[in-house]
Amino acid sequence: MAGEVGEGGIGEVEEGKDDDEEGEDDDRKSRGSGGDRRRGGSPKREIREGRAVVLIFRGSNGPLGFIVWNSPPEDSKRSRIYQWRWQLGKPNTLTCQLPTRKKMQWYFVAALLTILTSSQGILTTLSQSNGGYKYDYATVPFLAEVFKLVVSSLLLWREYKSSSSSRMTTDWNSVRLFPIPSIIYLVHNNVQFATLTYVDTSTYQIMGNLKIVTTGILFRLFLKRKLSNLQWMAIVLLAVGTTTSQVKGCGEASCDSLLSAPIQGYLLGILSACLSALAGVYTEFLMKKNNDSLYWQNVQLYTFGAIFNMARLILDDFRGGFEKGPWWQRLFDGYSMTTWMVVLNLGSTGLLVSWLMKYADNIVKVYSTSMAMLLTMVLSVCLFNFKPTLQLFLGIIICMMSLHMYFAPPNILVDLPLTSKAASESLKEVSVERRTDS
Amino acid sequence: MAGEVGEGGIGEVEEGKDDDEEGEDDDRKSRGSGGDRRRGGSPKREIREGRAVVLIFRGSNGPLGFIVWNSPPEDSKRSRIYQWRWQLGKPNTLTCQLPTRKKMQWYFVAALLTILTSSQGILTTLSQSNGGYKYDYATVPFLAEVFKLVVSSLLLWREYKSSSSSRMTTDWNSVRLFPIPSIIYLVHNNVQFATLTYVDTSTYQIMGNLKIVTTGILFRLFLKRKLSNLQWMAIVLLAVGTTTSQVKGCGEASCDSLLSAPIQGYLLGILSACLSALAGVYTEFLMKKNNDSLYWQNVQLYTFGAIFNMARLILDDFRGGFEKGPWWQRLFDGYSMTTWMVVLNLGSTGLLVSWLMKYADNIVKVYSTSMAMLLTMVLSVCLFNFKPTLQLFLGIIICMMSLHMYFAPPNILVDLPLTSKAASESLKEVSVERRTDS
Repeated sequence: MAGEVGEGGIGEVEEGKDDDEEGEDDDRKSRGSGGDRRRGGSPKREIREGRAVVLIFRGSNGPLGFIVWNSPPEDSKRSRIYQWRWQLGKPNTLTCQLPTRKKMQWYFVAALLTILTSSQGILTTLSQSNGGYKYDYATVPFLAEVFKLVVSSLLLWREYKSSSSSRMTTDWNSVRLFPIPSIIYLVHNNVQFATLTYVDTSTYQIMGNLKIVTTGILFRLFLKRKLSNLQWMAIVLLAVGTTTSQVKGCGEASCDSLLSAPIQGYLLGILSACLSALAGVYTEFLMKKNNDSLYWQNVQLYTFGAIFNMARLILDDFRGGFEKGPWWQRLFDGYSMTTWMVVLNLGSTGLLVSWLMKYADNIVKVYSTSMAMLLTMVLSVCLFNFKPTLQLFLGIIICMMSLHMYFAPPNILVDLPLTSKAASESLKEVSVERRTDS
Repeated sequence: MAGEVGEGGIGEVEEGKDDDEEGEDDDRKSRGSGGDRRRGGSPKREIREGRAVVLIFRGSNGPLGFIVWNSPPEDSKRSRIYQWRWQLGKPNTLTCQLPTRKKMQWYFVAALLTILTSSQGILTTLSQSNGGYKYDYATVPFLAEVFKLVVSSLLLWREYKSSSSSRMTTDWNSVRLFPIPSIIYLVHNNVQFATLTYVDTSTYQIMGNLKIVTTGILFRLFLKRKLSNLQWMAIVLLAVGTTTSQVKGCGEASCDSLLSAPIQGYLLGILSACLSALAGVYTEFLMKKNNDSLYWQNVQLYTFGAIFNMARLILDDFRGGFEKGPWWQRLFDGYSMTTWMVVLNLGSTGLLVSWLMKYADNIVKVYSTSMAMLLTMVLSVCLFNFKPTLQLFLGIIICMMSLHMYFAPPNILVDLPLTSKAASESLKEVSVERRTDS
C-alpha cells in the first residue's frame, strides 16, 4: 500500500475549531477583501499517502481553498492546482482528492456507469418482440429496486459484521428525508406524461437535454458548489452537444419547426428538467449530509423506492380493474433472459449512481449518462445498422471537448507559466511606474 | 491622452542583447527544466501608458513569457494574466496588449469586418435579378482590388506628406514576396473548382469549415505562435459550431449520406482548406515581417491583386473567344447601385482584413468571418423569411462559447485564487511530510 506513494495520495486537511455553517464559504467574494480575514487555530493535518505542500487560503469564515503540490519538487510537471471541495456535513473539513486510487475509482465507476447505461437502451430494445413488450414494463423498475435493496442489505450486513465502525443514523428526522427523491420522481413522471400531451417525442427528447443545465444550476443553488466560468461553459456545451447529436437529419419524415408546439409544452418541459435535476441534487444532499455508511443510506433509499414502485403497480391494477389479475401474480409474466438482464442492468446502474452521489457528484453522473446516450447512438449504428449522421459526429466532438473542459486541471488548459517550476524559479518582479507623455 | 491612464496601457517590454532566432522560444518544454535556464542581461522596459507590475519568466533562449498586473493594487479584480505575444520580425521584443485603445480598436475592426462580411452575402443576393447576375461577376473582385489600391495609395500619400517617418522597403527581395498570396489564391480557386466536380455544394460548404482548423495549424507551424490547449479546443469548437449551423434540417430535399462522395473529393477539400489557410497565414507573415507602413504593404499587395484579377478577366475573354467584346468594354455592364455597393463592401472588407493581419492575427480574422456567416444566416431568417432551425441556434451557442474560450483572459475562465490579491495576502505555506501507514 505504502509502496505506491510518491504518485499522489488522498490528502485531508482538517481545520481547527471553527463552527461555521455549511456552505458559508461561497460568498467570500461578496465580503470584500478586508484585512481581518485571517484567523487563528492550529490546523489539524492528515495526509494519508504521499507527500504534499499545501497552501491554505483562509477567510474570516474558515478555509477558502487550498493549493496542493503533492509531487517531489524535482518533478515540476506533476504539480497541479486543485480546487478545494467543501464537504457537506463536515463543515470544517476540506477534502482534496488527488489523482490516486480514490479518484481513479470514480473515473472507473463513471466509465462503468456509461457502459451500463448505454447497454440499458440496447437491452431494452432487444427485450422487445415484434415492436412491443411481452412483459409488463412497470415491473422492471420495481424488481430493480428490490435487487438494489437486497444487494445493499447484504453489503450493509457484511460491513456491520466485519467492523463495528459502520455509521447508521436511525433517527426519524434523518430517515423521513429518504422518501423525498421517490416523491420527486413520482411528480416528475406525471409532469413528463403531461408534457407529452403537448409536444411530440422528438421535441420532448431534445428538451430532455435541458436537465444538464438545470442540474448545474441546482447544484450551485442547492448544494452551494462553486463552478468556474469554464465549467459552466462546459455544462452548457454538454447540453448543446447532446442536442446536436439528436437534431433530425435530412430525409427523416415527420418533423415540426422550432417552437411549433404550444407554450404549455415548453413550460412543462422546463418544469420536468427542474424536477429531474432536483431529484438528483437532493439525493446527493442525502448521501453527503452525514458520514453514514453508503449501504445504510442505500437501504433507506431503496426501501422507499420499492414501496413507491409497488404502489404504482397497485394503482395500475386498480386503473385496469384487475383484468389481468393482481400484480404479484403476473410479476414475471413474459420474462425472458433479456428481461432479467434489463432488470439487473437497471439495478446495477442505480447502485453506481448512489456510489457517485456519495463519493463524486451530480455533474459526474450527468456526464456519464450523456456520454452513455452518445455511446448508445454509436452502438446503434454498429448493431442495428443505423445511418451515421454528421450531427452525431459533431455532437461527440462537442461533448468530448466539454468533458475535457470540465475535468482537466486548469493549468493543462491554459498553460499558466506559474505552475511550471522552471519558470517560477526564474521569476523576477519588476515594478514600472507610469510615464506621462504630455 | 495621459488623462485616460490607470485603466490600462500598451506595455512593451524589450529584452536585452540576446540574439536568438524568431520563434526559438516555443520548444521550451522539450528542453527540460535544467538549472542553467537563467541568463543575465538588463531588460529594457518601456510602458507607454498606465502603470504595471511585470513578472518576466526567462529561459535560456530569451523570455518565456510574462504576467502583467496593470491595475492599482487596491483593485484586485482588474488584475489579469496576459499571455505574451511573440512579435515576428522583432525577435527580442515581447509585446503585451492590454485592454486599452489599441485592443479596443481591433475589437472594433473585427466587429466591423463581421458586419461587412455578413452584408456581403445579403448584398450579393440582392444584386441578383431573376436568380442570376446581369453583370459579369468576375469584374467585382477586380474592381474591389482597384478600389483597395486607390484607397491605400491615397492613405500612403497622406501619411508620406504628413510625416517622413512612414517606412517603405522598396527592395526587390521584399516586393517579390507580395504576389505570393495572389498566386496561392489562384491555385486555391482551381482546386476549389476541381473539388466541386467530385462533391456537391452542401458537402463542399461543410468541408469549408475545415479551414478554421488548418488556419490554426499553419498559424502554429508557420508563424510559430503558441496556443493554449483551451485555445486549440476553441478553434475546433468554432469549426464544429459553424458546421452544426449548416447541417441540413429535416424536410430539405436532396441530401447525401456522410462520406458518400469519392475520396478524391475529400482530399481536394482538405487541400483547398490548407491553401486557403496558407494564403491567410502568408499574408500575416508579409504584414508583420517588418515595420513598413501598412499602406505601403497594401499598395504592393493590391497592385499584384489587381494584376492577377485582370489576367483572369483576359483569360475569360480568350476562353469565350471575345464573343462579348474585351473585358474593359463591358466592365460596368449591368451594374446597378447594389452592384457598386457589393464592390465597395468587398473592397472595405479587404482593407479591414489587411489591418487585422498587421495589428491582430489570422485567428481574429477567422472568428470575424465565422461570426459573419452566422450573422448572415440570422439576417436571412429576418430578411428573406428563412425558417429558423435548431441547428443554427446550437451553432450560435457553440461559436459564442468558442469566442469566449479563445479571447477571455484565463483567470476569468478558471477562477485561480492566485490572481486574487485577497487570497494571496492570506497565503500560508504548510509542508506536510509523508506518513507511512504500514
